[in-house]
Amino acid sequence: MIRTIYLDNAATSFPKPQSVEKAAARCMAGYCVNAGRSSHRLSRMADEKIFTAREELCSLFGINTPEQISFTYNTTYALNIGMKGVLKRGDHLIISSMEHNSVLRPAVSLSSAGVELSIAQADKNGEIVWKNIAPLIKPNTKMVALIHASNVTGRVNNIREIGLNLRKKGIIFLVDAAQSAGIVPINVKYDFIDILCFPGHKGLLGPSGTGGIYVSEKVNIKPYIQGGTGSMSESRFQPDFMPDMLESGTPNVCGIAALSEGVKFVRNNIKEIAEHESTLADELAEKLATLKGVRLLGRGGGKNTGIVGIALDGIPPAEAAYYLDRDYGIATRAGFHCSSLAAKTLETEKDGSLRFSFGPFNKRQDVEKASVAMMNILSR
Amino acid sequence: MIRTIYLDNAATSFPKPQSVEKAAARCMAGYCVNAGRSSHRLSRMADEKIFTAREELCSLFGINTPEQISFTYNTTYALNIGMKGVLKRGDHLIISSMEHNSVLRPAVSLSSAGVELSIAQADKNGEIVWKNIAPLIKPNTKMVALIHASNVTGRVNNIREIGLNLRKKGIIFLVDAAQSAGIVPINVKYDFIDILCFPGHKGLLGPSGTGGIYVSEKVNIKPYIQGGTGSMSESRFQPDFMPDMLESGTPNVCGIAALSEGVKFVRNNIKEIAEHESTLADELAEKLATLKGVRLLGRGGGKNTGIVGIALDGIPPAEAAYYLDRDYGIATRAGFHCSSLAAKTLETEKDGSLRFSFGPFNKRQDVEKASVAMMNILSR
Repeated sequence: MIRTIYLDNAATSFPKPQSVEKAAARCMAGYCVNAGRSSHRLSRMADEKIFTAREELCSLFGINTPEQISFTYNTTYALNIGMKGVLKRGDHLIISSMEHNSVLRPAVSLSSAGVELSIAQADKNGEIVWKNIAPLIKPNTKMVALIHASNVTGRVNNIREIGLNLRKKGIIFLVDAAQSAGIVPINVKYDFIDILCFPGHKGLLGPSGTGGIYVSEKVNIKPYIQGGTGSMSESRFQPDFMPDMLESGTPNVCGIAALSEGVKFVRNNIKEIAEHESTLADELAEKLATLKGVRLLGRGGGKNTGIVGIALDGIPPAEAAYYLDRDYGIATRAGFHCSSLAAKTLETEKDGSLRFSFGPFNKRQDVEKASVAMMNILSR
Repeated sequence: MIRTIYLDNAATSFPKPQSVEKAAARCMAGYCVNAGRSSHRLSRMADEKIFTAREELCSLFGINTPEQISFTYNTTYALNIGMKGVLKRGDHLIISSMEHNSVLRPAVSLSSAGVELSIAQADKNGEIVWKNIAPLIKPNTKMVALIHASNVTGRVNNIREIGLNLRKKGIIFLVDAAQSAGIVPINVKYDFIDILCFPGHKGLLGPSGTGGIYVSEKVNIKPYIQGGTGSMSESRFQPDFMPDMLESGTPNVCGIAALSEGVKFVRNNIKEIAEHESTLADELAEKLATLKGVRLLGRGGGKNTGIVGIALDGIPPAEAAYYLDRDYGIATRAGFHCSSLAAKTLETEKDGSLRFSFGPFNKRQDVEKASVAMMNILSR
């Protein structure tokens, strides 16, 4: 069997750091019990690990109060909770034409429940700036929900500029950090973020089944999911304090303990990781740009993460991905990347695009192999 | 350090079977990638593991179509999705006075959104039978949501009798199997269950961060969470087919792979496990009943799982749990067990109850140690 060259880190990062694997195994064998409910020593150990994970995330994102972070199943759940817990009939929501279906589909669902929805059009590179959003703002605009970095192209939006302008107007700024947490520096204060939704299993190098939401104390949010929280057990109402309000049912204890190590790994190396990933992506983009039938997506004049998105002429992206896997052991993703709007913005509605995405453990030779493979596939 | 005697299996089962630990570790090291999105070999491996887990669950629960099972973060999420995806303003919902907050709190939330709510009163043992429910039924009764086995007392309700009667009336029967999945035999056809919500981390011996929902093809359910599903990526609407409709965002791949092994373990031994756990619980109950100041909860004349719930006279349950842990290394849970209604039904509203809960790996000597410890604590 060919060794896999894993260039699908934007879907889920792989491999995980040794410390992450070890933390997961230690939990499974030693304290895979409930947290926040019982008071025995194993349960207290689980509590402590979860609290440490909150603290690690606070350090990474410049958050002052660990309690303002709730853990979720993944980013999608965080986004649903963040949007639907805040927006009510009559409110106005602005999203962008580069949003993932995890923002678009809840937004469409909200719009059928009486929330007004506007979609800010990105430029042809899929970048959104303040001037794309400003004209859409109305007196009832309650929230702008925006992707930080595109999952299709890796294009990074200048969220600080947008956040600053929204803060001045008192509009809630929700940032979808699915492709940026652990990859692009984020500071909720510096970037004027009110709600931050992030995955555990991508740039933060934790296992899948983890993610979270930070909600500023200033945001009036209601629980979208209710259930047992281990707190106020005697009440039929969901607690109204964080993190319990947004954390119902048994948490993913071992996943969160492992995520904590992932965040620590990232926190100690974020600049190096970011540079490593973008350098590899830039190199691959440069090589692919020389191939006939390749159109780079969302590159030039801006900032990108470790993603290279391309449109192809002459071969459907899904077919190219198939050959990359079968003949070269190169793992990529093809199609619409759960981003129906982005495909329109980037003019890839016909058959989508092909995505190469780098992680901290990719090597320079992976770039070489991917570009040679693509050259061969395109010249078949 | 004292060796822990773990009698908190009703919160989360621990330890896990070796096969579960190994499956989790194999996934973390080998294929902790995304499932259902990319098409490379690692992703296909993740897909296959998840499909196998669906098949294992089908075998256990007598379900014909694996696609009708969606994975969730935990039982609470499954319950929210199952109740809120079905009930609309004007519908009538019946729950029981023994429900966990994971059913009660969403029900209260629904009632503030225009769903009519009735609470069927259980008998003093916390058991619900058809005659407690029948008088509450009205023309607009859409669903009965019922706990299968109590998390406070282990009392098992005869769901088949209730299910049969509801089926005749065309009322949706939602069963909360948080304390019965993998512990009491469940067959969705035999028991006339339309929606089954279950945890992965309790009786099914998987890791936390796993759970699921089975929805019969006949139930008209709408997605409560929307997002990327890896399917119909080009559409702004959530797919309307199972399991994708109820599975948004990246699934807990390693958790589900490990859960699959847990279900297999249980499936091969369910009768032995059920008998082992109830035998230990019955023995402990018998011993504790002889102690002054102990009142057994929900026992006598019915069927119980491996849970022993007691009310205490003279010492608060939380204090007893503290001494059990500190002086004897015995892990239990004290308090209201996220069941505000049950505390009322069982007359433990003052300071709740103490719960001992057995799992497949407990031994007869654990019963002896727990009863001696309780004798010592109560005679302080």
